Amino acid sequence: MDTVAIVGVGLIGGSFALALRAAGYRGRILGVSAPQTLEVALARGVIDEGLPLEEAVRCADWVYLAQPIERILETLERVGALAGPETLVTDAGSTKAKIVERGRQCVTRGQFLGGHPMAGKEARGVAHAEAGLFRGRLYLLTPSDPAELETERAREFVAWLERMGARPVVLSPEEHDRLVAFTSHLPQLASTALAAVLEEQLGDVALRAAGPGLADATRLALSPFEIWNGILQTNAPRIREALDLYVTMLEKLRDSLEDGAARSAFETGASFARKLRAP
Amino acid sequence: MDTVAIVGVGLIGGSFALALRAAGYRGRILGVSAPQTLEVALARGVIDEGLPLEEAVRCADWVYLAQPIERILETLERVGALAGPETLVTDAGSTKAKIVERGRQCVTRGQFLGGHPMAGKEARGVAHAEAGLFRGRLYLLTPSDPAELETERAREFVAWLERMGARPVVLSPEEHDRLVAFTSHLPQLASTALAAVLEEQLGDVALRAAGPGLADATRLALSPFEIWNGILQTNAPRIREALDLYVTMLEKLRDSLEDGAARSAFETGASFARKLRAP
Repeated sequence: MDTVAIVGVGLIGGSFALALRAAGYRGRILGVSAPQTLEVALARGVIDEGLPLEEAVRCADWVYLAQPIERILETLERVGALAGPETLVTDAGSTKAKIVERGRQCVTRGQFLGGHPMAGKEARGVAHAEAGLFRGRLYLLTPSDPAELETERAREFVAWLERMGARPVVLSPEEHDRLVAFTSHLPQLASTALAAVLEEQLGDVALRAAGPGLADATRLALSPFEIWNGILQTNAPRIREALDLYVTMLEKLRDSLEDGAARSAFETGASFARKLRAP
Repeated sequence: MDTVAIVGVGLIGGSFALALRAAGYRGRILGVSAPQTLEVALARGVIDEGLPLEEAVRCADWVYLAQPIERILETLERVGALAGPETLVTDAGSTKAKIVERGRQCVTRGQFLGGHPMAGKEARGVAHAEAGLFRGRLYLLTPSDPAELETERAREFVAWLERMGARPVVLSPEEHDRLVAFTSHLPQLASTALAAVLEEQLGDVALRAAGPGLADATRLALSPFEIWNGILQTNAPRIREALDLYVTMLEKLRDSLEDGAARSAFETGASFARKLRAP
């Protein structure tokens, strides 16, 4: 593997490049992004060269798509026509079923393998990229058929993930999307809805009685819609399932406030919250 | 004011005693609590003497009830029969309408004034009490009639709150209970329900894909039911109102995942979350 093309040199794409380099990769790293981004990426030594998509994909052994989901779906159509028979195309999008389907349709000569690194931080952009972002974090891989992981290029990709300190885990695209619907998308919507109700019902008056618990519960609500639009659109059925189960649980609590039956929900919830914090 | 009786010498009652002392109070501080608690409170210098309720109330100018809500409601019946005409009885319970109603019924000779310090921390008990717990925090006062704040003993109480660095704010008991239904009780139930759904639907599998956002969103779910039972029972109508509005917002989100109409909820929620963090 001599050349990697990072398409979308932001926090994730830039961190992947830095992590690869830190793990010992000595080949070329090309970047495809807006000119200002490429300038920062070159200045920080994140990439070796900025190129247009066509040129970058034509000479790359790996194409790493780290754009927003909607852009990944568009880019896959162009990449499919450019990728050679030895190219591995992979991505870092937060939902997988639609992307993997598009990847299979478009990348007919090379191989597509969907991925989702469970890593990030509040600050975005290549200026905040860091070589250690994936260290110790899960890296979900979502082949449509587990045999796709047995190709030589897929094995090589997984080996580099491990050298970066990431922990690869294999799920089907559907398993992945249901899992993150509950662990990521539902918490986001629960936080957004809570903050929106407080703003609508009380506005600034709510700030008078706000404690650290409210700050925790509304932290995710700070996330901008631009990040979430593509996720909501590409994982809607599973998010609706999670929201419906959440609403059912809230209604159960509402109907048991005075009879002590809320206890079981508190105990079940506290048990989960404790496990989440167990070392 | 020569003698203060703290009934329930836990985190709040103990911190109130320490704060009073740190603010320059030189009178006696009596404690009413379980024997082991009194032992710790005496050892830490939080109180001067432990006494049974009857004796403590008979010689106190102030009676500060810092027990769980259910216990405050019970204690008020006994305190009412013991309080003299100069006694100020106040409390630190997290809901106010039922407590203020009970206080007015029971404390017929002295004066009852409901209160709710917006302060706390995860660790409980007098061992964690600290003089600075109320510093910079709101202290909600809930007279049934604002004129109750004009008595000499009420003015003296407010003056001591200010000397402690607390910021007294006056609300009616009903305003208070609606406010905390949204700012405290709804976030608690939203977090508990989220953690309970994750445990029921995914269990340990959810832990595989959990990030810092899920930890934030489920932090309140760690709170034990014992703290919440009295709150849910004494503020049920307003909590149901808040839950119904929350469910309506979640259903609005569920029905707009794919058409981009979720944007307005994200923007409203982010605006609230940002204001909450403004300096």
